[in-house]
Amino acid sequence: MSTPTTAKKPTKKRAPQSNAELALQTTLSGIQGQQRVVIERVTPEIDGGRFPIKAVPGDVIAVEADIFADGHDYLAARLLYKHGDDNTWQETPMALIINDRWGGAFVVEKQGRYHYTIEAWVDHPASWQHEIHLKVADGQRITSELLAGATYVEGMAQRAGRQAGNAHDEAELYRIATLFRTGSADAEGNNYNEAVSFAESEQFLHYAHLYPERQYPTRHAPELAVEVDRPRAGFSTWYCLFPRSAAREEGHHGTFRDVEALLPRISGMGFDVLYLPPIHPIGTSHRKGKNNSVVSQPGDPGVPYGIGSELGGHDAIHPELGTLDDFKHLIAVARNYGMEVAMDLAIQCSPDHPWAKEHPEWFKKRPDGTIQYAENPPKKYQDIYPVYFETEDWQNLWLELRRVLLLWGEWGVRMIRVDNPHTKPFAFWEWVIAEVKKEYPDMIFLSEAFTKPKVMQELAKRGFAHSYTYYTWRNNKQELQEYMTELTQSEMKYYFRPNFWPTTHDINPYILQGGHEPQFLIRYFLAATLSSNYGIYGPSFELMEHIPFPNKEEYLNSEKYEVRYWDWGRTNKLTYLIGLTNRIRHENAALQKTNNITFCSVSDDAIMAYVKVAEQNRLLIVVNTDAYSRRAGMVQVPIWELNIQPDQEYVVYDLLTGAYYTWRGEWNYVELDPYTLPMHLFRIDLL
Amino acid sequence: MSTPTTAKKPTKKRAPQSNAELALQTTLSGIQGQQRVVIERVTPEIDGGRFPIKAVPGDVIAVEADIFADGHDYLAARLLYKHGDDNTWQETPMALIINDRWGGAFVVEKQGRYHYTIEAWVDHPASWQHEIHLKVADGQRITSELLAGATYVEGMAQRAGRQAGNAHDEAELYRIATLFRTGSADAEGNNYNEAVSFAESEQFLHYAHLYPERQYPTRHAPELAVEVDRPRAGFSTWYCLFPRSAAREEGHHGTFRDVEALLPRISGMGFDVLYLPPIHPIGTSHRKGKNNSVVSQPGDPGVPYGIGSELGGHDAIHPELGTLDDFKHLIAVARNYGMEVAMDLAIQCSPDHPWAKEHPEWFKKRPDGTIQYAENPPKKYQDIYPVYFETEDWQNLWLELRRVLLLWGEWGVRMIRVDNPHTKPFAFWEWVIAEVKKEYPDMIFLSEAFTKPKVMQELAKRGFAHSYTYYTWRNNKQELQEYMTELTQSEMKYYFRPNFWPTTHDINPYILQGGHEPQFLIRYFLAATLSSNYGIYGPSFELMEHIPFPNKEEYLNSEKYEVRYWDWGRTNKLTYLIGLTNRIRHENAALQKTNNITFCSVSDDAIMAYVKVAEQNRLLIVVNTDAYSRRAGMVQVPIWELNIQPDQEYVVYDLLTGAYYTWRGEWNYVELDPYTLPMHLFRIDLL
Repeated sequence: MSTPTTAKKPTKKRAPQSNAELALQTTLSGIQGQQRVVIERVTPEIDGGRFPIKAVPGDVIAVEADIFADGHDYLAARLLYKHGDDNTWQETPMALIINDRWGGAFVVEKQGRYHYTIEAWVDHPASWQHEIHLKVADGQRITSELLAGATYVEGMAQRAGRQAGNAHDEAELYRIATLFRTGSADAEGNNYNEAVSFAESEQFLHYAHLYPERQYPTRHAPELAVEVDRPRAGFSTWYCLFPRSAAREEGHHGTFRDVEALLPRISGMGFDVLYLPPIHPIGTSHRKGKNNSVVSQPGDPGVPYGIGSELGGHDAIHPELGTLDDFKHLIAVARNYGMEVAMDLAIQCSPDHPWAKEHPEWFKKRPDGTIQYAENPPKKYQDIYPVYFETEDWQNLWLELRRVLLLWGEWGVRMIRVDNPHTKPFAFWEWVIAEVKKEYPDMIFLSEAFTKPKVMQELAKRGFAHSYTYYTWRNNKQELQEYMTELTQSEMKYYFRPNFWPTTHDINPYILQGGHEPQFLIRYFLAATLSSNYGIYGPSFELMEHIPFPNKEEYLNSEKYEVRYWDWGRTNKLTYLIGLTNRIRHENAALQKTNNITFCSVSDDAIMAYVKVAEQNRLLIVVNTDAYSRRAGMVQVPIWELNIQPDQEYVVYDLLTGAYYTWRGEWNYVELDPYTLPMHLFRIDLL
Repeated sequence: MSTPTTAKKPTKKRAPQSNAELALQTTLSGIQGQQRVVIERVTPEIDGGRFPIKAVPGDVIAVEADIFADGHDYLAARLLYKHGDDNTWQETPMALIINDRWGGAFVVEKQGRYHYTIEAWVDHPASWQHEIHLKVADGQRITSELLAGATYVEGMAQRAGRQAGNAHDEAELYRIATLFRTGSADAEGNNYNEAVSFAESEQFLHYAHLYPERQYPTRHAPELAVEVDRPRAGFSTWYCLFPRSAAREEGHHGTFRDVEALLPRISGMGFDVLYLPPIHPIGTSHRKGKNNSVVSQPGDPGVPYGIGSELGGHDAIHPELGTLDDFKHLIAVARNYGMEVAMDLAIQCSPDHPWAKEHPEWFKKRPDGTIQYAENPPKKYQDIYPVYFETEDWQNLWLELRRVLLLWGEWGVRMIRVDNPHTKPFAFWEWVIAEVKKEYPDMIFLSEAFTKPKVMQELAKRGFAHSYTYYTWRNNKQELQEYMTELTQSEMKYYFRPNFWPTTHDINPYILQGGHEPQFLIRYFLAATLSSNYGIYGPSFELMEHIPFPNKEEYLNSEKYEVRYWDWGRTNKLTYLIGLTNRIRHENAALQKTNNITFCSVSDDAIMAYVKVAEQNRLLIVVNTDAYSRRAGMVQVPIWELNIQPDQEYVVYDLLTGAYYTWRGEWNYVELDPYTLPMHLFRIDLL
């Protein structure tokens, strides 16, 4: 099956002899009858190519596919890729892995959208060489075969000649073709031996792949996409605070200027994103009081999520925090500290929001004609009007929301946390995120959707760069490992970037309500080392605020309903661990990715150990998840993944304490006391 | 979120104020902004709907999908399906299984191509009722909500009125709408109580689903397909013989008339398909001799796969077998025995085939201008010209092959075994099978591809109704169970119909080369009870022919190269088992499907046990796969799948021997001696 078509004749078609025959030939007309290769089960490919995967510059995109054809011919496959701005595809070869599974990879160098797909074809010269090997080994004379080979080599020469800079190869290939022909004519001569030797060489294959025949290629039809975000999408450290609680003196409403004064502390702890809950005017109708009381007292500041008053809505600034210029000043000062400011998009209105008057059609009406306030029966939230996305005027609603986001972009904001995105249509998010990124490609959206798995996944598919997760409720070793495995080993690894938070201003998890310091240390440290993106709600978290609203996973005296005064100067063991861990995260590339995790077997069922590797940076992290007992056990270091020989000594150096140990082999002893320090953050140094 | 839009206003669009705004609205123009439901991960769906699944009439097609929307509303989903001939979709409801996974099912009643897809929407009335439940339970008065409910009910009434035959429902729904309105107006009266009672009723939901709002529905875009073949595609029993070896007297070349004389024996053993290797004129150039000798002796009959001579090619009959009329007569007589005749399509030619002269362009040329014979280097097959599917004249080649197959259809053939389909392009098979089925919807193609898994799967996807399998080399319990699990639990279950053969005329497997009778019994019985489609190569198999060509998995003195004489009258333990098992297969529906298998735990590692169930027909099959030792062990009967209570007695009745046992509970004792009978075929009878 491997000798070449020596000449291509024009297709010889009989003239159809009847209408039936004409109809029949029509069934052939759309078919590429000579195209023999099949490409299937491409990975990554999210929902048949409907959604892009995500990456940051420098990431390696490893692509695999089932590639096969009828018969026994050799195949060639190329991975094609291009940046959105490019006109032509770049190519890199794919290689057979095993059992018709092929793999290849390319690097996304820069921000923006890349596309990739696969092309494959029957590799006749390679098949021919394989048969030459078999026949020569069998002692056959391959004179006729050399003639066929000459045709292949002439084809390579012609293709070399078509591209500039290949004159040398072209000449060499014509020389080889001649050698094949003369060798074929004299099976006893030196030319024959030389020709056979070249026919069997790696060099023949090299030329074949450099100037491929590429006959009847199959192209994987969907052009798959990679959305490459800026680096901070892959590695970020968030700090949430309520600016109204930023005042240094009790009894004062905090301002953006007060927040500026806190930046040395926050950036000093190693955070690079300052996230602020809504900073817009707060409504007064049905304003809530302390602890979510339905009746507010005079002087109660209201809930920042009750957005909008006669002073403006999502495009205005709450005057008690300062002016728009003050906010821009905060952004500028934060930038000097290497930090950026994230805003909070909550698509809902107080009854006093300008939209309620100007666009009543954007809200649902009750039968009595009044606007429907929010409900979660039997609970009623008369202070909030949800936006009605099924409105007939949805286009103008979407355009207005886009306008707000672009305005925030103008202010200098490049990160947006979205409140409850799962209660707004997926199609809206897909559209608005794409629209905003057209103007501000740096924009990063964080999805605050604590809801069902498939809904959270869908929001990530539609364009959210970051997603809140179930981490907040994954406490023991088994559930943490299972969850991390789902995030980093399932298809989610391609499009869902987790952002781990031990607490949020909405969630005071049961496990921390005891106020037990080792538990805070553990919950913090797991977030910061399992996920390259994480955040804390401060200073509540680092000051170990923990008293719950009775029987709820919420805080008593929550800042959502009142201004709080915090002792912003306080430091403790946790603040020390945070600062140290964030510094280590910046210095160790292995902590700047999430999917590079491998869990280790440990003999103790509370000690969790995992390895994270980024090129030469190898870390072994060991955490005692039991906040109440000293635990000890044997950890299995996956030396086979770390290029460590079984009898080779290596040093594990604890970046937290400076202690180090010389280990050998897979199984080594660890012991962790929660009351001293319940974790190791070992760098593995090969000797 | 659940009160209705009381009135639909025409969309209010602002006039675009600039070119930029116009461009922006263009990005909205393709979007259904109010469509909130997402449908993903539909099963079955082969390669995004590229290929149909397979079924036979009466099969239940169970469809699942992830279906979800933003927010917390209730959803409604319908499975849509239609036969190819129908203009309109039929519908059946889908129900939530768990965690946003929905399921539904429909029955394919008749042969042909069905299509199916899914439509889903937000179920506002159901969401409304859910909120009513919560508010009523909370003691709230729902007067305003009843007004909203009246609007829903009026909508149902209007939709009822639009279809004939619903006058009663329409009137009743208008009555209820009035009740809701009067109840709303007087929260202390009886009407209020009656209205609330109805609002909370199942009847409300019944009407809501009978006359659904169906607002902004999402339709799963691909229309998925089911290829429904005739019943014998699902349940068939094949017998292969070489007609030239059918003579009753040694030294004679068998004929179709001789084959007719064997039909009582073959149909008596319970076979319903008689498959004949190629019956066309055999070439004389480079004709092979006995045992594949490259030199034939005078009188050697040649290889039936060396197709074509001056007497004709694939459209002609080998004269030594009889005439075309004789062949048609055989088909007619076989039909009287409830059997049909399968032909063998081998797309290759002897050098004497008419195509070699008339269409030299359908064959590959060697550099010296001669036609390239078949090679599998270092081996050469000078008696065979492979057809060159990369020919520029591929369209006429395809048309000619289609003509041949349609001619066979004219002769009365409705089953075709295809020799080595994996060496011809997938696109050809997809086209030609579809073309032939247009004329002969009953046509069943069997793929004889013993090759790599993905290639075998692809052939099945492209249209082969049946596929040869690796069964021939799956011998021990573990590998049999693993293979059956792959066939019946992976995606293959939807499109790949296995046809199990213990031997073929090409394969004399090592495990049977010892001629050990219990081994033949086991290999036969496993094929016949694991797979609803199976076949034997007779009479070689049932006469326990086993002497190999030295060091090969082939037969010595194979019928492929010579005429054999068989003692067609002989019976033995194996022929008895075959006849009995085939009768049991016909009487027990559970053996007429393949995917209905559940393996049982057994304490012995050679005893294999499996349950097959079809409605009330429950079978437990126990096989000792060790052909040399008596084995005993405990079998775990999956009583939880058989509706048997733990303390309930049941009878296992051995359909092979008539023995029966009363069992209780899961674990029961079995003992099987290969030298008596190494299997049970129990019918489970509930008392």
